Amino acid sequence: MSATSTTYMESIILTAYGKPPLLEVGKRPVGEPATGQVLIKVMASPINPSDLIFLSGHNPNARKLPSVPGFEGSGTVVKSGGGKEADALIDKKVAFRSRPDIDGAWAQFTVTDADRCIPLLDAVSFTAGAMLLVNPLTAWTLVDCALTGGHKCAIQNAAASALGRMVIKYAQERGLPLINIVRKSEHVDLLKSLGVEEILNSEDQDFESQLACRAAALKATVAFDAVAGSAANLLLKSMPRRSELWSYGGLSEQPVQIDPMVLIYEQKVVRGFWGPPTFQQLPKDRFEAAAREIQEHLDTTFKTNVHKTFPLGDVQKALSEYQSNMSQGKILLTMN
Amino acid sequence: MSATSTTYMESIILTAYGKPPLLEVGKRPVGEPATGQVLIKVMASPINPSDLIFLSGHNPNARKLPSVPGFEGSGTVVKSGGGKEADALIDKKVAFRSRPDIDGAWAQFTVTDADRCIPLLDAVSFTAGAMLLVNPLTAWTLVDCALTGGHKCAIQNAAASALGRMVIKYAQERGLPLINIVRKSEHVDLLKSLGVEEILNSEDQDFESQLACRAAALKATVAFDAVAGSAANLLLKSMPRRSELWSYGGLSEQPVQIDPMVLIYEQKVVRGFWGPPTFQQLPKDRFEAAAREIQEHLDTTFKTNVHKTFPLGDVQKALSEYQSNMSQGKILLTMN
Repeated sequence: MSATSTTYMESIILTAYGKPPLLEVGKRPVGEPATGQVLIKVMASPINPSDLIFLSGHNPNARKLPSVPGFEGSGTVVKSGGGKEADALIDKKVAFRSRPDIDGAWAQFTVTDADRCIPLLDAVSFTAGAMLLVNPLTAWTLVDCALTGGHKCAIQNAAASALGRMVIKYAQERGLPLINIVRKSEHVDLLKSLGVEEILNSEDQDFESQLACRAAALKATVAFDAVAGSAANLLLKSMPRRSELWSYGGLSEQPVQIDPMVLIYEQKVVRGFWGPPTFQQLPKDRFEAAAREIQEHLDTTFKTNVHKTFPLGDVQKALSEYQSNMSQGKILLTMN
Repeated sequence: MSATSTTYMESIILTAYGKPPLLEVGKRPVGEPATGQVLIKVMASPINPSDLIFLSGHNPNARKLPSVPGFEGSGTVVKSGGGKEADALIDKKVAFRSRPDIDGAWAQFTVTDADRCIPLLDAVSFTAGAMLLVNPLTAWTLVDCALTGGHKCAIQNAAASALGRMVIKYAQERGLPLINIVRKSEHVDLLKSLGVEEILNSEDQDFESQLACRAAALKATVAFDAVAGSAANLLLKSMPRRSELWSYGGLSEQPVQIDPMVLIYEQKVVRGFWGPPTFQQLPKDRFEAAAREIQEHLDTTFKTNVHKTFPLGDVQKALSEYQSNMSQGKILLTMN
């Protein structure tokens, strides 16, 4: 590519937010990395719940349209905008997350910050690397922050989700007891078949008293909330004074709803939890060790099942498949 | 009083939670202080919003009934249950707050923990001392915690309330810029007449953009929320990444409602804020200096207007008067 003439690439272009959003397959100019940034030839990018939220327009970081969606992926760094960290990534295989304010990952090329990239081990495929950041980093960071925060037990809801099951496996490895909440009896069975012991079904009539009882017995003082709505209040109520709720998802599409008396009289805290930036703020040596640990366990603890792969141009089919079969596994887009 | 025969006292006795609650004037046994506790001859006790919440049954610390309401007051310590801190209070004039789990302040005598008492300066009347803990300590602690937390500006709603006006005066003394939100034009006028400059009316059509504009200009990173409901979300949205909302009241009688995307993508925090216990956890020298500072300014910065005083037996009249004329000032009960 020359620095003086614009080069174009195949991209998914969002032209209007909505349910459904207006998406086109078209040409966009290949971006030019600034200092501290890199240009990545993208190989694969998953569809995540955060993409659906972005496409619907419900995102405090909504961008001016038209724009390219996609918040994470894998690829090869082909150009540096300058700076030591960016230069060091040239020709490297990386997992990356996109900046919220510029074109994202669903294109043949993308620009992002060097510090939003994690170099991939040789043994890690572009497919596995494309799904490194959002789920594995969130699961790792939830468990790690709970332990470093001195919590003796955590509660999580949506425990049968891909991320929930990663949290279960990693919490077990790190020795963090978990109380797992699901809302369907088949999810109870699924988790039992995986050997999980502490499982509660939120549809049970006496769920609230079961939760209070197990939370007290295991001394839970933090809850990982993927659901929002009034679930958040129940989790917070079940734990003692000064406990925390970490909100990392909004599956109910409701606001987080908390009784102010539960907050005030028990001096409790609700914290927005976003795994990837928290992970990337780790001290350099911990960050590197953790990035290696996660990659070495991408086939076990941090495994993500891929349901189907679609070429970039089939994004509409890919989105339909994702929305109708969410629990089957990830949908990946491939672009090069 | 003898330690072997029970002595009885006049009390307000709550027999059923509700709106209205069932209250009787009757006899209850005078309590016996345990180690670390004191018996107080109560002189005055106010009706606070927290009392109305307790009487309605909407309180995570609801007690078994019958029980004596009342969460703060003033009086003289007449007996110690033993222990250095409790013994040191004998014959002292004190402001006190009640334990959540035993009979409270609306009686001729009450038992509470020595560390829930603050000795009163000679110049402070029982009337002024009775209202020392809840409002002045909350106002002091909100402003102090904002400053020690490094916040450059705070937003507060319900700014025309008795507590809101205390926060305004004390924030001005300590040099903390405030953005004040009210919801009536007469409250705008009231605050203007007190010389307040930053006032927003939440009923204005462009309130949200006004708030975002002033919050950005003044670099607000913390909001004091007395209202709950969806107001909480607006306050949190108006501030940058990692900002905090401190929930200290529920005037809207709605849950605190927060968009999880605002929490997650901007790593924001909602914290239940309860002034008195936070104040009483200050290091001993800061605690003593602050308790003296507040008492020396009970006629100015921390002044609470008393609307009417009722003898204990007229509690029903006192409650009616309070609920129909909340903005007129405090209602006090006197019992000895």
